[in-house]
Amino acid sequence: MNQETVGILLFNEVEVLDFAGPYEVFSRTRLNPGIQSRRSDESAPFRVFTVSATLNAVEATGGLRVLPDFDFATVPKIDILVVPGGFGTRGLLNDTPVLSWIAKVGAGAQLVTSVCTGSLLLAKAGFLSGKRATTHWGAVQLLAEVDPTIRVQSDQRVVKDGIYTSAGVSAGIDMALDVVESKHGKAVADDTAHYMDYPRHVG
Amino acid sequence: MNQETVGILLFNEVEVLDFAGPYEVFSRTRLNPGIQSRRSDESAPFRVFTVSATLNAVEATGGLRVLPDFDFATVPKIDILVVPGGFGTRGLLNDTPVLSWIAKVGAGAQLVTSVCTGSLLLAKAGFLSGKRATTHWGAVQLLAEVDPTIRVQSDQRVVKDGIYTSAGVSAGIDMALDVVESKHGKAVADDTAHYMDYPRHVG
Repeated sequence: MNQETVGILLFNEVEVLDFAGPYEVFSRTRLNPGIQSRRSDESAPFRVFTVSATLNAVEATGGLRVLPDFDFATVPKIDILVVPGGFGTRGLLNDTPVLSWIAKVGAGAQLVTSVCTGSLLLAKAGFLSGKRATTHWGAVQLLAEVDPTIRVQSDQRVVKDGIYTSAGVSAGIDMALDVVESKHGKAVADDTAHYMDYPRHVG
Repeated sequence: MNQETVGILLFNEVEVLDFAGPYEVFSRTRLNPGIQSRRSDESAPFRVFTVSATLNAVEATGGLRVLPDFDFATVPKIDILVVPGGFGTRGLLNDTPVLSWIAKVGAGAQLVTSVCTGSLLLAKAGFLSGKRATTHWGAVQLLAEVDPTIRVQSDQRVVKDGIYTSAGVSAGIDMALDVVESKHGKAVADDTAHYMDYPRHVG
């Protein structure tokens, strides 16, 4: 089938569950429900890969070492961009190559999303101006500082205002399931959550 | 502080969230609450690492590539063993070196745990004989076949009977939080869940 590509940005000190949650959701979504459909990619609507500035192993928070599939120079077209958070985002707020890459790839993407403090990078790259958005509960003030025009919705788990942003860490799972629902309907999203034994959280 | 080691087993076709959920929980637990305490390891009660049969990159379900910290020959003493699931467990049900390693390391560990179909490997290694245990909802029958003496509790998210087993994929997060609670109390587990923006599921 014609798959949409999901590009998940990796960087040093990215929070593990921030990228692993959406990775799990998008890579395990199948249009045909159940277990057997997940043993092949036949009804997989997404092709998921990781991307980082270089091909060097990324050291996530806690020390987990992940090998990116692509670097900025070689990454295929990204339809859905996922920008996770973590303490590593703080240093990236002044990293022109990374911010420029996010701005460029996000502008060409069909949908731009973030998890947790990944929204700080989207804000810095200009995607959240005048929009409703959220972030980790510990970074609400910082998000408003990066771009004071953002209407921060700290009481919501997923905020959809063109861009999809999510609250902290585990909320990225709900954000990804919401993307699945928006593209393939509630039954497909619910089946993916059921496969993951994940009780979805609404609002 | 004197840290307990958490060894998370990796293998090809391990389910991403199965290992990433517990990795997140154990590596981000702090005895001091809040955000600031998580910027250092000062009050971190666990030291978390990944281990695999070899040091080769592991390809998780969906293609995520992870570099193990240790192989079986060099891994330090493991206090808490985490055996995740995924389709890769099926091939390991006849992999004597891996099953022997689980049996040996589990026997020396303070606590043995599994996520999802990781319980199949614990069963095959002999840890679940006569015990209550659970697994992914799609593998309930298979778990009973691997060891018919197991009392499978398919209606529970986490089953504690000396060994901690969990239901599918995301239930590993709850399992890990339950381990944190058993060792460091409910306040520390709840604070870790709050940091992760994760609503805990009981039962």
